[in-house]
Amino acid sequence: MNKYEEKTISGETLYEGKIITLRVEEVELPDGKKATRELIKHPGAVSIIPITADGKIVLVEQYRKALERTLIEIPAGKIDPGEEPAVTAVRELEEETGYGAKEFTYIQSFATSPGFADEVIHMYLAQDLYKIENPAAGDEDEFIGLLEVTLVEAQEMVVSGEIFDAKTAFAVLYAKNLLTK
Amino acid sequence: MNKYEEKTISGETLYEGKIITLRVEEVELPDGKKATRELIKHPGAVSIIPITADGKIVLVEQYRKALERTLIEIPAGKIDPGEEPAVTAVRELEEETGYGAKEFTYIQSFATSPGFADEVIHMYLAQDLYKIENPAAGDEDEFIGLLEVTLVEAQEMVVSGEIFDAKTAFAVLYAKNLLTK
Repeated sequence: MNKYEEKTISGETLYEGKIITLRVEEVELPDGKKATRELIKHPGAVSIIPITADGKIVLVEQYRKALERTLIEIPAGKIDPGEEPAVTAVRELEEETGYGAKEFTYIQSFATSPGFADEVIHMYLAQDLYKIENPAAGDEDEFIGLLEVTLVEAQEMVVSGEIFDAKTAFAVLYAKNLLTK
Repeated sequence: MNKYEEKTISGETLYEGKIITLRVEEVELPDGKKATRELIKHPGAVSIIPITADGKIVLVEQYRKALERTLIEIPAGKIDPGEEPAVTAVRELEEETGYGAKEFTYIQSFATSPGFADEVIHMYLAQDLYKIENPAAGDEDEFIGLLEVTLVEAQEMVVSGEIFDAKTAFAVLYAKNLLTK
């Protein structure tokens, strides 16, 4: 299984930020030649597919500085140090949407940008939602709008390009396949 | 639409690599407060959903140093400077799989890690595949294995976690929905 493995010969951490770390590594390729890899280390994140009692998906609208635009996404957030992903999921759903869920189901985990980053997103389905009376506030540098749309509408937003986020596009197709016929 | 916009107050490029650039920017939030954003600039990429005449999807197996593991993905690759994404798609399909396609269809584009990176992937469907006799070689630091599986098998690989890449998981659900009933 590891016939393609690239062994690290040397490496240097060039930046350690609040969220990401940049490393550059010299690797030995399977044919013995050398190559350089630019690598971003990220703590990992969770995302949640929140489905309301009437079958709508809850989406968040948020400015993404990296892209200089507002994106429509499923709720998501970084895992705090030492935090269980399932705990992050409950916390982020509350902070970003004000909802709790009586039923949380782990779906699966994915790498988002394997070409240069180790970010993995753990995805959860949240059902039987209820409004939390005084929900915990989110990060103070996060400004979020909420949308609730049917899965048919959400799928149209994927097709039209209005949903421009890969994890959200997957989540919408997944929920549409699973929860409707 | 820009009520959530974060205006750049100041910024610094801390690393300019072969593929990625790291910038740290100080931004002004909608409430006038300040925050720091760690941003990765990436040239963008394409990915291709190659479907053979007998309805199988062509997947590539490749070591991803960022994750220290081999991943199974749809063919994909970075856009060269000044290259049209549609040209990248034809090139990468040939280099990674040895296939040409009589029919290329643009599907859509997605941000992969909007929380910290501007990477956008443009996705194409490639149908009516044919083997190219002497296909162009890929990057010399890329070692790739090929798999051809049915869409039902591919979907099982998503559910089992064997497919661990977000763009590939989306692609499989998309192709399954579109091309089978």
